[in-house]
Amino acid sequence: MTSSPVPHMSSDELRRHGHAVVDWIADYLDRVVELPVQSRVEPGWVRSRLPAHPPQTGEPFAAVLRDLDEIVVPGLTHWQSPNFFGYFPAETSGPAILGDLLSAGLGVQGMSWATSPACTELETHVLDWMVELLGLPERFLSSGPGGGVIQDSASSAALCTLAAARERAVARHGVDPTLVVAYTSTETHSSVAKGARVAGVGHVRAVEVDGLHAMRPDALEESMTADRRAGLVPAFVCATIGTTSSTAIDPVRAIAQVAARHDVWVHVDAAYAGTAALCPELRHHFDGLELVDSYVFNPHKWMLTNFDCSCLWVADRAALVGALGILPEYLKNAATTSGEVIDYRDWQIPLGRRFRALKLWMVLRHYGAAGLRAHVREHIELCRWFEARIDADPRFELCAPAPFSLVCFRCVVGGGGTPTDGDGVTADLLAALNGSGRIFLTHTRLAGKLVLRMAIGATMTERHHVEAAWELISELADAALADAGLAGSE
Amino acid sequence: MTSSPVPHMSSDELRRHGHAVVDWIADYLDRVVELPVQSRVEPGWVRSRLPAHPPQTGEPFAAVLRDLDEIVVPGLTHWQSPNFFGYFPAETSGPAILGDLLSAGLGVQGMSWATSPACTELETHVLDWMVELLGLPERFLSSGPGGGVIQDSASSAALCTLAAARERAVARHGVDPTLVVAYTSTETHSSVAKGARVAGVGHVRAVEVDGLHAMRPDALEESMTADRRAGLVPAFVCATIGTTSSTAIDPVRAIAQVAARHDVWVHVDAAYAGTAALCPELRHHFDGLELVDSYVFNPHKWMLTNFDCSCLWVADRAALVGALGILPEYLKNAATTSGEVIDYRDWQIPLGRRFRALKLWMVLRHYGAAGLRAHVREHIELCRWFEARIDADPRFELCAPAPFSLVCFRCVVGGGGTPTDGDGVTADLLAALNGSGRIFLTHTRLAGKLVLRMAIGATMTERHHVEAAWELISELADAALADAGLAGSE
Repeated sequence: MTSSPVPHMSSDELRRHGHAVVDWIADYLDRVVELPVQSRVEPGWVRSRLPAHPPQTGEPFAAVLRDLDEIVVPGLTHWQSPNFFGYFPAETSGPAILGDLLSAGLGVQGMSWATSPACTELETHVLDWMVELLGLPERFLSSGPGGGVIQDSASSAALCTLAAARERAVARHGVDPTLVVAYTSTETHSSVAKGARVAGVGHVRAVEVDGLHAMRPDALEESMTADRRAGLVPAFVCATIGTTSSTAIDPVRAIAQVAARHDVWVHVDAAYAGTAALCPELRHHFDGLELVDSYVFNPHKWMLTNFDCSCLWVADRAALVGALGILPEYLKNAATTSGEVIDYRDWQIPLGRRFRALKLWMVLRHYGAAGLRAHVREHIELCRWFEARIDADPRFELCAPAPFSLVCFRCVVGGGGTPTDGDGVTADLLAALNGSGRIFLTHTRLAGKLVLRMAIGATMTERHHVEAAWELISELADAALADAGLAGSE
Repeated sequence: MTSSPVPHMSSDELRRHGHAVVDWIADYLDRVVELPVQSRVEPGWVRSRLPAHPPQTGEPFAAVLRDLDEIVVPGLTHWQSPNFFGYFPAETSGPAILGDLLSAGLGVQGMSWATSPACTELETHVLDWMVELLGLPERFLSSGPGGGVIQDSASSAALCTLAAARERAVARHGVDPTLVVAYTSTETHSSVAKGARVAGVGHVRAVEVDGLHAMRPDALEESMTADRRAGLVPAFVCATIGTTSSTAIDPVRAIAQVAARHDVWVHVDAAYAGTAALCPELRHHFDGLELVDSYVFNPHKWMLTNFDCSCLWVADRAALVGALGILPEYLKNAATTSGEVIDYRDWQIPLGRRFRALKLWMVLRHYGAAGLRAHVREHIELCRWFEARIDADPRFELCAPAPFSLVCFRCVVGGGGTPTDGDGVTADLLAALNGSGRIFLTHTRLAGKLVLRMAIGATMTERHHVEAAWELISELADAALADAGLAGSE
């Protein structure tokens, strides 16, 4: 069929191997519940099983699938296990997996409208759909001066908006970037501090939080006023709806009002929690978004869409493009020159871009709004159930409100010790849980105390998984307390 | 099977729809040669065919595949067509498509070693393999202080290394980032200027090039000396092997020698051309890499690996991690604390990361080093053939050397006009070629003249496609010259 000396995979082989890979994935998802959730390999185990030198000639496809089973799978922590409760979820789903597959198969580049119009237009369209589905303000629709774009992550979205805010401040105040200040809270995701460092923003303030781990607008006001008095230029504040440690909710409206007085760009990061806005009964957590400059949420966390798919909206796309747009001769084309189209390369750091809208489109069409809402409500309900178990059990304490599907808790040690006396037992419990291979959780610190995070949100997690997790936690907590010579349930 | 009210795709459905999608892709790749290479839709065409509002309930999978054919495919410019000669290629291949599919199906996060050890270790291992395959210096192996990482793009790699270089300069010289200078050539990819803007690097110099479009080390020396005299701090220079416009080759060794005198980080961007180093007979183009701080090449261009897969190596990983590393409580784990593992989140902008090493591993194993070399050699030979046609034909002129698989040419207009007199005819030829739907090329400017770029490199491009392209170019050039009242072949 081909005269080429290159051993390309023929289309017949692609069909055969492709079917085998699809079946392998379906099998994997069927059996992942039986695998130890956290990988048990030691550092170097995977590499020690790989050949030291690359293959000189091609190998049969079956050899790769065999090594997948024997070398790769044991080295995975299984994020798709229904017993994965760590970090935040990174949900996949059938339609999203197949959307990613189609994107790979088409292999088009969406850096400019002209390089594949459908890649750009489907993205713009689906992001407008999401504005409607999430009840976001009209300012984020592409029909006005704003619009949405898919980024790889909320970290990149933070960096892009920070760069735009920095440029706006520098232009308005004629100062250099070392005088620019960005504001986060002590609970804001580390990506903002990282973005500020990359962007050469001179100052980052971590504003104090209240007892519920939410940013204090009065402290923000004080900090901005003090900075201006010192000759600095407040330029950017990131409010979070659903912080990483505890899903705390910063008061966006009050923060935006403070920011408006100081002419500061307000970015809202709802990377995990943003999916909850699908449900009208949860929208009160998202109050004030009509006052903000940019908003990001990640369908790749809790909305059944494979990583990477982070949706960023801006109220003023010109500010973003002004900071990130560059047009060399080799990218010029008639559509760009006409000004009638969006060139998403100017909305992001990389030049190239995959057709990521396909998977989001396929998720929306497969589930429909009703299906997605049912998904969120199921996890919220499981969270309520688990939270009630913790709350009713004297061996544990809740460490933060649980407005979405994350419960923060720790072991309680009786008596009049210091507040962190429970840290040791809590750490032992975490080690025992993860060591069991039956579930996987991660930790954080809140107000100095070690806290376990039960993040309910894997695609396949159902009630019986959460019930079994609770039983295991209960059982291993007894053991941890006994080892420590304590009886938590007294 | 499931008690959930959420309409998840069952594993049986995933198998059935997955096989259908695999077959759709195989069919697409079989028929893509028959489709107009450049999409013919007008701005807004795709959106006008999509529903204004998102679906409230789920739709059958077949409806999505139907819309894929009817709405998406007409809106694509077909990068995988064997008649696609625009930009640089974005090659896919069977093993890479299936590697991306596996990555989507596994759905693991590789932000830390601990979050899926295989994701990190396979990446480190395959990047060490690539050092061997490409004949790169040992300083880039993970066994020393350096190492490799997969980024989404050479743009992001430039930004990360720029940030590292900026931090190093700021630390060594105690200056603020506004005094830092980055150097490119007038032919360097726009990503470096964009990265410098994002990173808040105060000054970017575009150093003059020689007659072959390569950076002049003497001009670089002058520029650095002048900047230092002016109190600025030279910190970063990007040399390119295979520039975007013309695949010019900057003299890396001489540039590195200049940079060493001024204590400047040398980054080498071989995004497209880097694949050529697979072939020992082409390695002389890559001279001097043992003197540089970082090196990037994109398997997602010419090495049969789906976008995104950009390989970045650094000689001193501590510099990169120092600029990009942040460790909040919720990411702490025993493996990280031990210092025995790589946490790739600290080597990149985003926190999350897909299992991208899988597709690169599968490409290397399917083709083997010999297969990949045959692939490069085939395209190089086709390029030689096409270059000879242009060179022998008085209607055209070659505009740059063609060391890899890109030929830069333009129409010649006889008589004693200005050098850009051929621009109009060349532009008409480009419009006619792309308008025909039979092939697709893009343009650039070299020394002020409009130039067509014939980039040979799509996976399925074979000799007869290049021969047919040449016939079409020849035929339409006659027409363009006749329209202009010129006879180019006189």
